[in-house]
Amino acid sequence: MSDVLRLRPAATPAMLAAFGDAATIAHALAFEAALARAQAGEGLIAPAAAQAIGHACATLAIDPAALAEEAAHAGTLAIPLVARLRAALDGAAAGAVHRGATSQDLADTVLMLQVRAGAALLFADLDRAVAALAVLAQRHAATPAIGRTLLQDALPIGWGLRVAQWAAGLRDAAAMLRDTVADVPLQLGGAAGTRDGLGGHGPAVAARMAAELGLATGAPWHARRGGVAAIGAALGIALGALGKMARDVALLAQNAVGEAREPAAAGRGGSSAMAHKRNPTGCQVALAAATRAPGLVAALLAGMPQEQERGLGGWQAEAPVLAELFLLASGAAAAMADVGEGLEIDEAAIARNLAAANIGSDIGESVAIVAALLGEAG
Amino acid sequence: MSDVLRLRPAATPAMLAAFGDAATIAHALAFEAALARAQAGEGLIAPAAAQAIGHACATLAIDPAALAEEAAHAGTLAIPLVARLRAALDGAAAGAVHRGATSQDLADTVLMLQVRAGAALLFADLDRAVAALAVLAQRHAATPAIGRTLLQDALPIGWGLRVAQWAAGLRDAAAMLRDTVADVPLQLGGAAGTRDGLGGHGPAVAARMAAELGLATGAPWHARRGGVAAIGAALGIALGALGKMARDVALLAQNAVGEAREPAAAGRGGSSAMAHKRNPTGCQVALAAATRAPGLVAALLAGMPQEQERGLGGWQAEAPVLAELFLLASGAAAAMADVGEGLEIDEAAIARNLAAANIGSDIGESVAIVAALLGEAG
Amino acid sequence: MSDVLRLRPAATPAMLAAFGDAATIAHALAFEAALARAQAGEGLIAPAAAQAIGHACATLAIDPAALAEEAAHAGTLAIPLVARLRAALDGAAAGAVHRGATSQDLADTVLMLQVRAGAALLFADLDRAVAALAVLAQRHAATPAIGRTLLQDALPIGWGLRVAQWAAGLRDAAAMLRDTVADVPLQLGGAAGTRDGLGGHGPAVAARMAAELGLATGAPWHARRGGVAAIGAALGIALGALGKMARDVALLAQNAVGEAREPAAAGRGGSSAMAHKRNPTGCQVALAAATRAPGLVAALLAGMPQEQERGLGGWQAEAPVLAELFLLASGAAAAMADVGEGLEIDEAAIARNLAAANIGSDIGESVAIVAALLGEAG
Amino acid sequence: MSDVLRLRPAATPAMLAAFGDAATIAHALAFEAALARAQAGEGLIAPAAAQAIGHACATLAIDPAALAEEAAHAGTLAIPLVARLRAALDGAAAGAVHRGATSQDLADTVLMLQVRAGAALLFADLDRAVAALAVLAQRHAATPAIGRTLLQDALPIGWGLRVAQWAAGLRDAAAMLRDTVADVPLQLGGAAGTRDGLGGHGPAVAARMAAELGLATGAPWHARRGGVAAIGAALGIALGALGKMARDVALLAQNAVGEAREPAAAGRGGSSAMAHKRNPTGCQVALAAATRAPGLVAALLAGMPQEQERGLGGWQAEAPVLAELFLLASGAAAAMADVGEGLEIDEAAIARNLAAANIGSDIGESVAIVAALLGEAG
Repeated sequence: MSDVLRLRPAATPAMLAAFGDAATIAHALAFEAALARAQAGEGLIAPAAAQAIGHACATLAIDPAALAEEAAHAGTLAIPLVARLRAALDGAAAGAVHRGATSQDLADTVLMLQVRAGAALLFADLDRAVAALAVLAQRHAATPAIGRTLLQDALPIGWGLRVAQWAAGLRDAAAMLRDTVADVPLQLGGAAGTRDGLGGHGPAVAARMAAELGLATGAPWHARRGGVAAIGAALGIALGALGKMARDVALLAQNAVGEAREPAAAGRGGSSAMAHKRNPTGCQVALAAATRAPGLVAALLAGMPQEQERGLGGWQAEAPVLAELFLLASGAAAAMADVGEGLEIDEAAIARNLAAANIGSDIGESVAIVAALLGEAG
Repeated sequence: MSDVLRLRPAATPAMLAAFGDAATIAHALAFEAALARAQAGEGLIAPAAAQAIGHACATLAIDPAALAEEAAHAGTLAIPLVARLRAALDGAAAGAVHRGATSQDLADTVLMLQVRAGAALLFADLDRAVAALAVLAQRHAATPAIGRTLLQDALPIGWGLRVAQWAAGLRDAAAMLRDTVADVPLQLGGAAGTRDGLGGHGPAVAARMAAELGLATGAPWHARRGGVAAIGAALGIALGALGKMARDVALLAQNAVGEAREPAAAGRGGSSAMAHKRNPTGCQVALAAATRAPGLVAALLAGMPQEQERGLGGWQAEAPVLAELFLLASGAAAAMADVGEGLEIDEAAIARNLAAANIGSDIGESVAIVAALLGEAG
Repeated sequence: MSDVLRLRPAATPAMLAAFGDAATIAHALAFEAALARAQAGEGLIAPAAAQAIGHACATLAIDPAALAEEAAHAGTLAIPLVARLRAALDGAAAGAVHRGATSQDLADTVLMLQVRAGAALLFADLDRAVAALAVLAQRHAATPAIGRTLLQDALPIGWGLRVAQWAAGLRDAAAMLRDTVADVPLQLGGAAGTRDGLGGHGPAVAARMAAELGLATGAPWHARRGGVAAIGAALGIALGALGKMARDVALLAQNAVGEAREPAAAGRGGSSAMAHKRNPTGCQVALAAATRAPGLVAALLAGMPQEQERGLGGWQAEAPVLAELFLLASGAAAAMADVGEGLEIDEAAIARNLAAANIGSDIGESVAIVAALLGEAG
Repeated sequence: MSDVLRLRPAATPAMLAAFGDAATIAHALAFEAALARAQAGEGLIAPAAAQAIGHACATLAIDPAALAEEAAHAGTLAIPLVARLRAALDGAAAGAVHRGATSQDLADTVLMLQVRAGAALLFADLDRAVAALAVLAQRHAATPAIGRTLLQDALPIGWGLRVAQWAAGLRDAAAMLRDTVADVPLQLGGAAGTRDGLGGHGPAVAARMAAELGLATGAPWHARRGGVAAIGAALGIALGALGKMARDVALLAQNAVGEAREPAAAGRGGSSAMAHKRNPTGCQVALAAATRAPGLVAALLAGMPQEQERGLGGWQAEAPVLAELFLLASGAAAAMADVGEGLEIDEAAIARNLAAANIGSDIGESVAIVAALLGEAG
């Protein structure tokens, strides 16, 4: 059973891979291997057991569909995954697998590894968009154009001012997201978040694992989910900023306005019924994503009041929602980076629209504001 | 690239199939075949062309991944799908494919066919849950139990009264959803919603197609999306009603309360860290779904102000969101039907908790209210 | 402390009054009076007590601010309100006040009375908008104009076709809302929803109250909130349909398009900085409301999984959210009705824009579709 | 017309005042006075005019209801406010009022001033809650208690560990909010965001105004709304953290659990039907707020794709939504601070529930984790 027709239009292949089954399984096995090695490092399990577990994690082939079926039945991914690992090991090593950990330790750590990978993908496209827009904004900073408020002609602006505002919005959103994912933490709390069963070596085991996996560490956070919600909110804001740019580009591309349009690409933006059309397909991707994102952020916030040491429902809702936000952000950021890099600008139309407004061409401090926007720290 | 580990825990395999790639492609080809046959019936294309198109639609094998890639690039599924169909046909038939239709005609009709199929799957589980709960409610209608308000012991109730309220909530939600999907319509408007290119035979072509596909007909609704939003809202309400039951079952299953718990099933509800636990895994599925649903409904509503004859972004956001609501509803309804059918009730605990409240055992009109709830029309 | 600057811009004075303090207090007192009279009618309290209660309810002057302060402290409106009533009565009548009822009986019944009043206000404006748009749609059904999809010129349409789609969207939404509020029910369940303390006369007391208050009756629904959510969803859909019209009008009113604009009104749509501007102020109200509504509907859905016989948090969230939806809908419907009634249409601009598209003037079956849209049952 | 019965239960009087009419008018007049003084400082208007404007702003009495009515008609608060100011001044000063500014400059600056005031109120209660919880957490860090996951008894924890998690969640949320509101900026862009009409002194005028009003400065941000959305998201996360604590307290207060309950207060938490009850009224306030907040954050995100130099609808939706988030946060934070300060803990019940679980009393590293949670930087 495949779902690529539903998922692909909104997301990049790379981001789909980052949250796909193969990545999930690889991260889960990396968690178990790191846990074993860390415990061996602290003398909690035998080095040979850790070695065997590490080998099994590196070599075990797991069928996602079968694993998913069992995970759905068990109510957690960890149970069938750990069972497979144990089945691949002899007794002593088998007994050392997943020791001191709970299902959510694995699930949350996998999610944070995916967040880290997903954010890196996203920054590449967001930075690409910002760079392209900065060039455009500077180039057209002094070009007089009609500014529009409440969808009505208002006063002249430098055409690049609007573009600089897009750039600043995206740059600020990327900075906020960078801040939020800078220290995504390992999860390691054990069954009730007390790190029982680690013989008092909890912090040391966690530190070793975090170092191996490239994550931050700290106290367990099984039912303290502000960090997850903050990542989601930052993605939501990034999608809003991408949507802002997309809406403006689409408005500029209206036939009656014609000041800019998306770059032409063979087979892109066509119509199944009208061969003459050039649809703003990149804007479509970003605006659809911006329509979907707010409700996803709301779901993360709604799930925050999680019960006691591990929530029922609120927690389990998070991972697919956060994944979806990354998927949407990937598609929107890639689309807007492409649009920014190839935006076709019609200076004649810009001049014509300004002249039609008959309101002069005093662009005020547009040039200085463009410089300030492009220079401001996020 | 597969995503089953992310998607399966929340949804039934049948619902995943109903919104999966194979179903999407099959519905899309059914649309094109029905369109051709309807136009032939009205004398707009040659019968031989319709026959050839129908044959191609019945036999063409399409790789979802390649199709998705091209659809993502083109901005619409119809373009690469129609191109494949045309490539499989000779000139005359090729020219008759998709005539008078636009991408959204195909996309919306596919979505409505999936809605119809998905709703049928859902009703089976909702009805199953209601039936099971009605039996439980009647059986325990007169069993004195402590009623609880604001999570505090309040006054006695018949134990079955709460169950009857679950049943009534699910039955009302199913009725509302039935109402909403009773007449899901075909979409056929052509490029700008005017049914140009059908030679004035628009209503007749639409009627033939609707009859073949088992859909209702009416005027085009490309940018009039209240119907889609209403389906989503009904799903959201059903998920809220399922979540209500799930929350109550989970509260009843608390060790300190112990009045009921989910049915035991080998490998279900275990813990990767605590062998003694029996987790309310069905409730987990339903509560996670109820946490995710409101934001999805919000996305459908947010997308409603769609521009002009076909929106940019708002429309394209709908189909994956509606699919996700059906997926979530499927998992929650199946889980709650199973819980309802196998709920383990501890009458001693019920009596013990009532006695502890020390507030008598006058259950008021509980029995009559249970009867009224189970008898009331939805 | 007043809040009119925050609340008024989005709502009509009449709707603000319908959900304001005076109305809330009047409905609450009407509930208590009806309860007393119904119980007297069933012989549960003395006729003289009912008469005294009725008199007190008709004459008691209550300061909203003091009542609100006490209600906030107590956690429920009923407690300080009932205390005031009792203080105004002698012993026997005082003891008969609120008998058999619980705080939520009062609160939910007040809310349903406000829903009924609010819906009536809303239908007046929705119907006014539909009527005005139907006239416009018919008048311009055959006027060739450019149709636009994905914000790009597409193919010609009859100019009135888009207007007819607005009318149909509003009419369908109004019909859905009418359906949803047709039988808003009384709430009467007593402390735990068992109607204890009514001596087995529960249905009769409820029927008498419902008749007096003009509400429907049925089993208690303290924690079964699908009905409330459905009202909210219908309002959300109505706001989406109003937003659709508003977005289109604002796009038509762009200077470069100029096909229509909001009616001129002295002092309306001005700019504090640009005297020459004419802002689409009605559209602004409707679009702002459409931006806020989806999250409010989401809150109602999110609150549905309410605990046991009366929820903690989910229930108490509903009334202000539902009120806000009515407030927003009132402002948006009034604004769009005014816009529909006074829309200024520029036929020359319509012709000019069509000519610029250079795509002929075949409007397909536009005229017939307009007729169908205006004739279709909701 | 008053609305206190609807608004007060969810909010503190101080926060209602911070976003009430008097504060709004005072901030608006402070904006105009600061603008005039800054322009005089830069030699753009006469010192006497600035003095006259400052005097008028300090002394003008404005009726909120009349102002609101005119603002609703005009579509912006600035127009009737500026008209009143001008009417109170002679010609030269009247002509200098609001020069170089636009309606949104005033509206956004007012909003930021309210954000600053509202945040200060909020921090007081959040900090109070954190301090109280830190004391509780340390006092009970080593008290063995049953930990609960998925609403089932799991393994022992130190009772204070859960409390420390609440404290850490609130502290982190407060830190995030502090970060977000640290530099709330003045808005000053003029009609199209170019600072035309300030004779090239834009940055200097803005800097003077910002200094007087105690705000940060920077480039205009009329249609770049990530900052507003970030404030809303931080409030949403704070409300989620408050809801987490509230849900846990309510679960602990269940009669069958009885480990803790809200402090007793005369007239608080009573029932209109059951004198024996003690309802978790503070938790009710926080949970209701946590139910409402996610949809409000979603509205801010949904409004981000604002058109061009000033949006239509998306912008105007923000201020009342952000106000509502502050109102909800105020009520929830005050309630939870009170609950934290007065929480009644029943050690016997804690011991009894642990014993019933029959799973020993090894609380793992609970004490160390409590110390880490209370010591960790936000």
